[in-house]
Amino acid sequence: MSRKKYVHGYTDRESERLTDQAQTLTALLHDDTQYPAGSSVLEAGCGVGAQTVILAKNNPRAYITSVDISVDSLLRAEGIIREAGLANVTFCQGDIFQLPFGHGTFDHIFVCFVLEHLAEPQRALERLRPLLKKGGTITVIEGDHGSAFFHPQSRFAQKSIDCLVRLQRDMGGNALIGRELYPLLKAAGFGDVHVSPRMVYADASRPDLVEGFIIQTFTAMVEGVGDAARDKCVISTEDWERGIRDLYRTCREDGVFCYTFFKATGTRTGTPGKSSRA
Amino acid sequence: MSRKKYVHGYTDRESERLTDQAQTLTALLHDDTQYPAGSSVLEAGCGVGAQTVILAKNNPRAYITSVDISVDSLLRAEGIIREAGLANVTFCQGDIFQLPFGHGTFDHIFVCFVLEHLAEPQRALERLRPLLKKGGTITVIEGDHGSAFFHPQSRFAQKSIDCLVRLQRDMGGNALIGRELYPLLKAAGFGDVHVSPRMVYADASRPDLVEGFIIQTFTAMVEGVGDAARDKCVISTEDWERGIRDLYRTCREDGVFCYTFFKATGTRTGTPGKSSRA
Repeated sequence: MSRKKYVHGYTDRESERLTDQAQTLTALLHDDTQYPAGSSVLEAGCGVGAQTVILAKNNPRAYITSVDISVDSLLRAEGIIREAGLANVTFCQGDIFQLPFGHGTFDHIFVCFVLEHLAEPQRALERLRPLLKKGGTITVIEGDHGSAFFHPQSRFAQKSIDCLVRLQRDMGGNALIGRELYPLLKAAGFGDVHVSPRMVYADASRPDLVEGFIIQTFTAMVEGVGDAARDKCVISTEDWERGIRDLYRTCREDGVFCYTFFKATGTRTGTPGKSSRA
Repeated sequence: MSRKKYVHGYTDRESERLTDQAQTLTALLHDDTQYPAGSSVLEAGCGVGAQTVILAKNNPRAYITSVDISVDSLLRAEGIIREAGLANVTFCQGDIFQLPFGHGTFDHIFVCFVLEHLAEPQRALERLRPLLKKGGTITVIEGDHGSAFFHPQSRFAQKSIDCLVRLQRDMGGNALIGRELYPLLKAAGFGDVHVSPRMVYADASRPDLVEGFIIQTFTAMVEGVGDAARDKCVISTEDWERGIRDLYRTCREDGVFCYTFFKATGTRTGTPGKSSRA
């Protein structure tokens, strides 16, 4: 993702949101990503390091190389890793479509919340595949804003979410990419593709998720594109504000919120797939 | 649910669909419903017995009383139970709002795919609660058609699903009730309410679910209301047929389908809730 194409922007608040998000969802999304000691792992698109720190903590004996196209993001990520006292991450600036690594360099590749921002996610996966050793695995985690539903229902809240989806599409991304991970990895030539959906379900009996996910992660993310939404989408300020209010409304005693992330794994098999040219 | 108010009708094909659905989803929805030996269990709204047979098999030493308002459905259910060689179920005709049982009769109550067809689901729960012994539990399972999303996306498929939701609403039901189980059980005075979402995720690597869920369960259900949808909804025959075709389209090699059921449990606690009058 290039600097100006990141739909959520590069502010401090956004950086904080990404860190909150990573903390709340750690167990749900990351706890089963365990690489053997001595593995070399490429994190493609590390951003500000919100996932890097989890990956590095969960795999203290793996050697992680984290790349991103944005130097500013890399500097923040380095700061987070240094602060956490972790020594198993090397940072490197690079474009996911032409990374400076030879074929067969890595045992594993990890890609989290990156494909959603790319106009050509399949091509990115095709470019990553040969960087794996044969038998090496890729892990991809993405959300899907079309998976969000809630109680009380609200067409205004839905409209606000639709605005975010549209803004991301206008920037070449796809906020509904989670559901597509299976066909994407297959088309990019990976074998043994397995997708595991991870639903966040929050009601009043789970106050940590209400606070950490509905408020600090999802609604903060929608709210964060407010100015752009009102500039570019067909939504009035009044409807937008009602939509955000109705998203917060789902946090009350009788509210419910559901959202699904998708985690996919695939293997670089011996048999060349469709993309054997890659 | 009264005979004429069941949105899916009472045909043989529908009966078969319900049996297919029950078989495919057994492990996902039912395997953790285990009642202690000797428990008395009320199944409220057993319909044609699709869930009854699972409940009775999974709990061979519990005594199950299954009630339904439709005598025809009860006869079918009795046939299924007899055919399965099960002896732990007693059938009884009755209306969920005025069941012929005294207060504190049952250790547990089980309600599956019933509330979605009722105009007053909270009142039904309020009527069921006193039939439990103190400390007894209720288990409620419902789907939520608003949780369905798929790849490739299709506004026609979405429109067909919306027609089913609307038809069910016109008949007094709520096809989006799954997400509401937490507030419903709380409002009906149950304690210790816990909701667990159960997502069906089907892609080409899971052919049993593609066949058993996308085709035989979900699309069959939508397709089953086709005549009514074209009669009563704002949908042309052409759009409807395209919608059904696009639902089947999600079964191909690159297709994906997601749907979420909700399973809730609650306890009749000593403290009277809002509905202590019940």
